Amino acid sequence: MLQIRNVQEHDYTSIIAVINDWWGGRPMADMLPKLFFIHFQPTSFIAEENGEMTAFLVGFLSQTFPGEAYIHFVGVHPDKRKDGVGRQLYQHFFETVKQQGCHTIRCITSPVNRTSISFHTKLGFAIEQGDKMVDGISVSSNYDGRGNDRVVFVKEI
Amino acid sequence: MLQIRNVQEHDYTSIIAVINDWWGGRPMADMLPKLFFIHFQPTSFIAEENGEMTAFLVGFLSQTFPGEAYIHFVGVHPDKRKDGVGRQLYQHFFETVKQQGCHTIRCITSPVNRTSISFHTKLGFAIEQGDKMVDGISVSSNYDGRGNDRVVFVKEI
Repeated sequence: MLQIRNVQEHDYTSIIAVINDWWGGRPMADMLPKLFFIHFQPTSFIAEENGEMTAFLVGFLSQTFPGEAYIHFVGVHPDKRKDGVGRQLYQHFFETVKQQGCHTIRCITSPVNRTSISFHTKLGFAIEQGDKMVDGISVSSNYDGRGNDRVVFVKEI
Repeated sequence: MLQIRNVQEHDYTSIIAVINDWWGGRPMADMLPKLFFIHFQPTSFIAEENGEMTAFLVGFLSQTFPGEAYIHFVGVHPDKRKDGVGRQLYQHFFETVKQQGCHTIRCITSPVNRTSISFHTKLGFAIEQGDKMVDGISVSSNYDGRGNDRVVFVKEI
């Protein structure tokens, strides 16, 4: 039985303990400081199955652009990636921010992460035009600093 | 003549280009993704002197705790660290968030950064009680994940 709840500050410890493993060894912890688990709880969620965390999503409302929300980080347990739990977390996020007047969702991913690109496309995200093509995908060069190319997604809800 | 203005998305490129140098070679860019320069512009500022960036501050309003604001990242050009520009950016942030109903400011620093600890203490920040003492300073162990101890500051404005 899948349950979705808002994150709490103390969830940070369990998430940071598994995060590099869930990403196949890529060092991800620096990209997820605890501040997100303290200050963006209303739009950040954990999915649990029988009390065990199977996925999480960290997002927030844009403070520059009213009506926009941003998904910063999503992780799904490697054994649960075909179960639709990622999709359920996104849907939960969409509903939550829509109730707060949001109409546009943004997020990014790395060009190497084909699974993520396919996931977002299936969910109805469009890819914003970048400045180069990589394997048929439009990519924004150096988006997150030199060498950190990104695929930039946007979706109207 | 010092001028303070809100950050714009395009400032990200200039900041990310200097940030590791300003921190004496510590790799900091991963901790500052572009999202902060897109979605938290109302509470993020750049100080310029004769058109050259001398400092920046990235902060936001807590979305969990109304009345709280958080300062995520502050950088000052190494040649400008005695000029009070850091203090001026903090004061500008305090005034901005106070107008939006904030009464509490939070931020963190690394225990090794004695200059930062001294700076925040002089500005009136208190150090929250952690779980160990390091050179007379209360420190929160593994605050940002294993090995990432932090000094946790709070100030009422």
